Amino acid sequence: MKRPDPVAPSDDASRALAWQLLSEATHAALSWTDPETLTPGISRVAFALDPEAGPLTLISGLAPHTTALRAQPACALMVGEVGDKGDPMTHPRLMLRALAAFVPADDPRRATLRARWLARNPKATVYIDLPDFSFVRLVPQSALLNGGFARAFRLSAADFEA
Amino acid sequence: MKRPDPVAPSDDASRALAWQLLSEATHAALSWTDPETLTPGISRVAFALDPEAGPLTLISGLAPHTTALRAQPACALMVGEVGDKGDPMTHPRLMLRALAAFVPADDPRRATLRARWLARNPKATVYIDLPDFSFVRLVPQSALLNGGFARAFRLSAADFEA
Repeated sequence: MKRPDPVAPSDDASRALAWQLLSEATHAALSWTDPETLTPGISRVAFALDPEAGPLTLISGLAPHTTALRAQPACALMVGEVGDKGDPMTHPRLMLRALAAFVPADDPRRATLRARWLARNPKATVYIDLPDFSFVRLVPQSALLNGGFARAFRLSAADFEA
Repeated sequence: MKRPDPVAPSDDASRALAWQLLSEATHAALSWTDPETLTPGISRVAFALDPEAGPLTLISGLAPHTTALRAQPACALMVGEVGDKGDPMTHPRLMLRALAAFVPADDPRRATLRARWLARNPKATVYIDLPDFSFVRLVPQSALLNGGFARAFRLSAADFEA
């Protein structure tokens, strides 16, 4: 006998929570595929939910995830902080499958992304214009929202459309 | 001209920091490969550095990462919290490539792992003995320690031997 699916379809409350977790995030855990070994890698990346570009990161060409995303744009990211109290597994987090889309340095939209990024994090001035740094859009494909023990929801790409 | 490697070899201080990050962690971000699509997935998992078994997690058979690790044991995990202050990218974190080794339910060492796990997290009593929950050792293969902006160290499997 097949067990019932433990993951519920998305609803208004789970979409709102997913959006809130993305809006509040300043960093994310990013999962990528190592192009040499085809095994999983993981990194912490800077993160923002840009009002136009959606989930967005700014990464260095010296980082292994940059090489990996250029070779294989399929990736996954997780946002949602663990609080100080209680079982860490009860704090909500969003696991988002995404496709990485590099923003070319000469893309006319880059100036706006850059201005909004610096407004949120002025300290990025030090490195944002270094030639090996790139903005990368993390275009949602699907997601799993875990709102705590045994409270999981499946979201689709459509759930992330503004 | 090839640029110099931005990652330094491990030393006593970086090994000590890696060990400290693992010792303090109660959860980790886990990167795995989806066996159907061969694309990356990510999950938050409970975590402990067991004094005998090393990096250890306790996962549910209902979770997608459990199916994934059974099919493809190569994975990667990240530990290290982001503090309240400053640029989140300046807080140290360890990215560990590992091989997942499931601890069989009838393994004679399971009782000790279980007792130590419950001593650290008594709330796990609720689910630790459910039949689909498994202890999984995350056997270190190599690691990247990021101690803040432009302070990275490469660690080997030998660096994690007690």
